Amino acid sequence: MFDFTIHARKDRARAGVFSTPHGELLTPVFAPVGTQATVKTLTPEHLKDIHASLVLSNTYHLYLRPGDELVRDMGGLHQFMQWPNPMLTDSGGYQVFSLSKTRKIDDDGVTFKSHIDGSTHRFTPEKSIAIQQNLGADIIMAFDECSDPNDLAYSRIAMERTHRWAERSLQAKTRPDQALFGIVQGGVDPDLRAESARFIAALDTPGIAIGGLSVGETKQEMHDTLDVVTPLLPENKPRYLMGVGTPEDLINGIARGVDIFDCVLPTRLARHRSAFAPEGRLNMMNAAFARDTRPLDETCDCYTCRTFTRAYIRHLIMARELLAGTLLSIHNLRALIRLVAEIRSAIVDGTFESRVDGWLTQWGGNAVRKI
Amino acid sequence: MFDFTIHARKDRARAGVFSTPHGELLTPVFAPVGTQATVKTLTPEHLKDIHASLVLSNTYHLYLRPGDELVRDMGGLHQFMQWPNPMLTDSGGYQVFSLSKTRKIDDDGVTFKSHIDGSTHRFTPEKSIAIQQNLGADIIMAFDECSDPNDLAYSRIAMERTHRWAERSLQAKTRPDQALFGIVQGGVDPDLRAESARFIAALDTPGIAIGGLSVGETKQEMHDTLDVVTPLLPENKPRYLMGVGTPEDLINGIARGVDIFDCVLPTRLARHRSAFAPEGRLNMMNAAFARDTRPLDETCDCYTCRTFTRAYIRHLIMARELLAGTLLSIHNLRALIRLVAEIRSAIVDGTFESRVDGWLTQWGGNAVRKI
Repeated sequence: MFDFTIHARKDRARAGVFSTPHGELLTPVFAPVGTQATVKTLTPEHLKDIHASLVLSNTYHLYLRPGDELVRDMGGLHQFMQWPNPMLTDSGGYQVFSLSKTRKIDDDGVTFKSHIDGSTHRFTPEKSIAIQQNLGADIIMAFDECSDPNDLAYSRIAMERTHRWAERSLQAKTRPDQALFGIVQGGVDPDLRAESARFIAALDTPGIAIGGLSVGETKQEMHDTLDVVTPLLPENKPRYLMGVGTPEDLINGIARGVDIFDCVLPTRLARHRSAFAPEGRLNMMNAAFARDTRPLDETCDCYTCRTFTRAYIRHLIMARELLAGTLLSIHNLRALIRLVAEIRSAIVDGTFESRVDGWLTQWGGNAVRKI
Repeated sequence: MFDFTIHARKDRARAGVFSTPHGELLTPVFAPVGTQATVKTLTPEHLKDIHASLVLSNTYHLYLRPGDELVRDMGGLHQFMQWPNPMLTDSGGYQVFSLSKTRKIDDDGVTFKSHIDGSTHRFTPEKSIAIQQNLGADIIMAFDECSDPNDLAYSRIAMERTHRWAERSLQAKTRPDQALFGIVQGGVDPDLRAESARFIAALDTPGIAIGGLSVGETKQEMHDTLDVVTPLLPENKPRYLMGVGTPEDLINGIARGVDIFDCVLPTRLARHRSAFAPEGRLNMMNAAFARDTRPLDETCDCYTCRTFTRAYIRHLIMARELLAGTLLSIHNLRALIRLVAEIRSAIVDGTFESRVDGWLTQWGGNAVRKI
């Protein structure tokens, strides 16, 4: 269980297989986000159709609603949401800091107010692990503190706390069928990141997460941070870049040795009526699509692209029909899953180096184009 | 094309087959409503899963948005929404009277304002048929005027206008691959209804619709009206009771010789978080379902019931996840389609009479239970 085998490499990029109790993950892998035990608007059948292999769910949200003990009593997260394949939960740390209006951090943990009803709650490393054990995902995260990347002094404090919390998380974990990943923090400071990478790499965990990126730093800072961190991590453990990202972030992350990604971008774009397409991100409210009989992406194999025209999708959007969000989510998620699968194949067949610039050109434009 | 064969009868109830260019309809049949070229929140795959055979779409809505000429240019309604099986459009008459804030009726037609942007439009029988020919459904409706059932004088005027408009609709229709149904009106007055039934029955149409019911009259008035109308209609044409209805309305309608039904109730209940179940309509927000590991209906074969617990569906509702509406719509539609299929089988195998009271007892309770 939790074996990680690397089948092919090109420089720092790797193509591997990570074994979990609910199946093997071919890495690199992009995980759709199912915050509240559902990838918004999609059924598990839709997720299978887009070849999703790993689904993330959020500890903070499920703890508050419906409650991790309820999920446990319903047979755990896989059973509850009927997702039979691998799952990952985060530690709740990031949400406590980003969603709760008031929070008090001390060395033992964090006291915060629910964003739903204002009630007071407390997370500690032990509590986060207990919740994640109740939820039962295959991959779980150590409790961590994400700092403002531009505040060096705070980044050190948060990093040191994250390290102590990683040790406590590891000690608290008892389920053998869950892989606990420690989380590298340290803002965008190369020394802190190096220190954190060494500390987390030394822990006895089957994988390592890189947190605190895609939180306001520049693209250059993200790349520089990965350039510091991944060379310091053991080769034989998968690396998970939390909450990242755009298509170009995935390409750049894989090139720098990252194996696992998750991001709400594809489903969020769907809610904003945008679609990934070969010509860039499409604003599907645009009148130019009113009579466009093409699929969103002629090269895409998803249900939406196999079935519907741009004209129909635009009609659904203009008529405020919820099916629009479903169809766009299917396509946008498939687009990133397909991109990552394509990159994996290229690592395996030795064409990664010759294709990486093409992907960046094709997808990089998306990062700067207005939605 | 448009042959109607009756395979079995029990008193006035009939089990038949109606042939359309997009396939055969086993009658009695319940049609999900896809107002804006989509059955709300469902994909065509979901509709196939619930064994939907006929889907209704609304002429008024599609004329306004995206426009019937656009739908025509996109290959027609079947192609546009990717529904390969039979479709039906109404005439727009009912929506003009119920949705438009201001309207002016004259003998030639109706001038009305769009409920979307207040723009002025005019429907005549010829215009309604032209729109429906652009949309391209298998079954289309004559333009009609639906009256307040409690206003006898107006019911006569509206009925007479409906008759003249039915003749004009018939004359305007040119597509041989569409079956035009005339519509019986006359409020709840038995004499008017008899007069209207005779008039509409005498027209050369492959089927007959019964309009102006489920618009505020009592259940008894609905049944009495059907008791007047259906005996006056030719046996060899399918009868379509427009916009009806609740499960008990379907049972009562079939017993009185109705073959086709449509209603928004199943999808509307889904939006209101209610589910059809053997014990009655369930309010799925009820805390009693928080840890209920049963499906919505243990006897149901739909995707929702095959896959998810009541606890999960309640969680989705409480977390305001849109998937809840999708799962409830699938189940509620399947419940009525399954009920009608069960009744059809009973007509065929001779058990209708012995089972009808049981259905009414089981489902009739739903009609009076608060949602």
